[in-house]
Amino acid sequence: MGSKRKVLALCGGVGGAKLALGLSHVLGDDELCIVVNTGDDFTHLGLRICPDIDTVTYTLAGCVNTETGWGRAEETGTFMASLKTLGGEDWFYLGDKDLAMHVERTRRLAAGENLGTVTQALSRKLGVSVPLIPMTDDTVETQVEVEGDVESLILPFQDYFVRQRCEPKLKAIHFVGQEHAQPHPQFLANLLDPDLDLIIICPSNPFLSVDPILALPGIRGILQKTAVPVVAISPIIGGAAVKGPTAKIMGELGLKMNSITVADYYQDIASGFILDRRDAVEIEAIREIIPRVGVAQTLMQTIEDKIELARETLDFVGLDV
Amino acid sequence: MGSKRKVLALCGGVGGAKLALGLSHVLGDDELCIVVNTGDDFTHLGLRICPDIDTVTYTLAGCVNTETGWGRAEETGTFMASLKTLGGEDWFYLGDKDLAMHVERTRRLAAGENLGTVTQALSRKLGVSVPLIPMTDDTVETQVEVEGDVESLILPFQDYFVRQRCEPKLKAIHFVGQEHAQPHPQFLANLLDPDLDLIIICPSNPFLSVDPILALPGIRGILQKTAVPVVAISPIIGGAAVKGPTAKIMGELGLKMNSITVADYYQDIASGFILDRRDAVEIEAIREIIPRVGVAQTLMQTIEDKIELARETLDFVGLDV
Repeated sequence: MGSKRKVLALCGGVGGAKLALGLSHVLGDDELCIVVNTGDDFTHLGLRICPDIDTVTYTLAGCVNTETGWGRAEETGTFMASLKTLGGEDWFYLGDKDLAMHVERTRRLAAGENLGTVTQALSRKLGVSVPLIPMTDDTVETQVEVEGDVESLILPFQDYFVRQRCEPKLKAIHFVGQEHAQPHPQFLANLLDPDLDLIIICPSNPFLSVDPILALPGIRGILQKTAVPVVAISPIIGGAAVKGPTAKIMGELGLKMNSITVADYYQDIASGFILDRRDAVEIEAIREIIPRVGVAQTLMQTIEDKIELARETLDFVGLDV
Repeated sequence: MGSKRKVLALCGGVGGAKLALGLSHVLGDDELCIVVNTGDDFTHLGLRICPDIDTVTYTLAGCVNTETGWGRAEETGTFMASLKTLGGEDWFYLGDKDLAMHVERTRRLAAGENLGTVTQALSRKLGVSVPLIPMTDDTVETQVEVEGDVESLILPFQDYFVRQRCEPKLKAIHFVGQEHAQPHPQFLANLLDPDLDLIIICPSNPFLSVDPILALPGIRGILQKTAVPVVAISPIIGGAAVKGPTAKIMGELGLKMNSITVADYYQDIASGFILDRRDAVEIEAIREIIPRVGVAQTLMQTIEDKIELARETLDFVGLDV
């Protein structure tokens, strides 16, 4: 090959952002497009907050807090401390640097710009040169159905996820508004580009971060029919999730905590699947679900880890790296 | 006397806030009510900002920046620096601590609370025990008419005042919405309280900070007819304004920069007038405008200065101090 490659990455928060960063080192700005989940976006304190967009933006801009994987590096909490004194809600941490993103995004959205335009503009201001596209300009709101004392309760996702630290027992996840949400035009254009070489499903939570993207009208159907390789990277490492509530959620949804479950989940759309070396024992089972299976070191701690996983993913489908 | 006193103070920003602090040391919480100008409130970056309310709140709470007279002490500018990187508007400084006030106020207003309720709640959270009342719960917007290249331009006040640093030549000041704004019910109740002993017009800019209060429907008429002493303290010291653009504005409006001009401005409502010792030469001229005139040290640099001017103002009308 040697000519220009075209790769589309579907991405959630922390894990996805790390692979996106690796891909951005291996591919040119015109070879990569990153589509980001907006299902857990929400409005808080009057501010529009897009957790996954921000995580991917900060990661690609090199200003993410590498300890948490989200938020800004060298962040300060003066605003939050002051807000707490005033009796304001402090359960969702907003650092002083990070806050500027939410204020400026909210201002631009209120002025009539769409989320895609705002996301591209603000990520570019921070030095991100790869196109970052929200999955949709429309609003999709993740709500979770949890066990209550008597009957089920419906909670906004961040209320469940952050305020209640995922403590209520999960029964179902709903993406409110998904049936009317239009995939972002650049997402569709990239997906249908005849020169597209590869679609990567990044190692993000399948149920919370990837599903909102797949559930947009038309997307799953396109992915089922496309001739372009669709490669999913499992977020499970050694039978556990690297971060976050994936394990608890999978358990409560009655799913086994392994990459076989993830492969099952992607079986109708993925033509290739990469799992962690530590789970290589699952290869045969997964091969019965998805024909092409690879193993890799999927824990991405250093920048070298991220670049290496990006390389191995491209190499897995025969793209020059 | 010796019994409870009842004092109502009409207050703008920095100068007024300093006297209000002095009064709060001399009077009990049930003896003082402070009504604050909201004419220069504005919405910026989607946030509702009330400069005079904030200055009075921070001053009474003991957390004001004593060098500037406004904003928070030991403030940090992390948010602003981050906003600037994102290409956001940075001409109106919003410190990290101060920002919490605007975010929480905006959130509560959007939730349906009125400005009076929000102001009382937030000032109490900061430890202010004196009632702080906005002049109105309605919106009054100060606009200035300035000279343009060909014809006059109308500018929002903070645009003129902060962004353009008062550089355009002022022709007129308008308070848009004042004819429909209702004085805050607690303002009216205090003003009409049969036990009221004294109304103080604090040493704030008459044209920018006090006039919006006086211009509310009914207020000037009540002040003209009341039997309660109305004492105005001149903001002019030694023929100059302590801070801000008062001198330039008065010049452009064709007014002489002295306390005689201020007395003229208040002649229909003030029964007493206090000017600075340094301007004592103006006493006779002012006595022809307002019958009772006193002199005092009106420059309030220390807390003792503020308390002393408060005492002298009460003493001026024979209230025990």
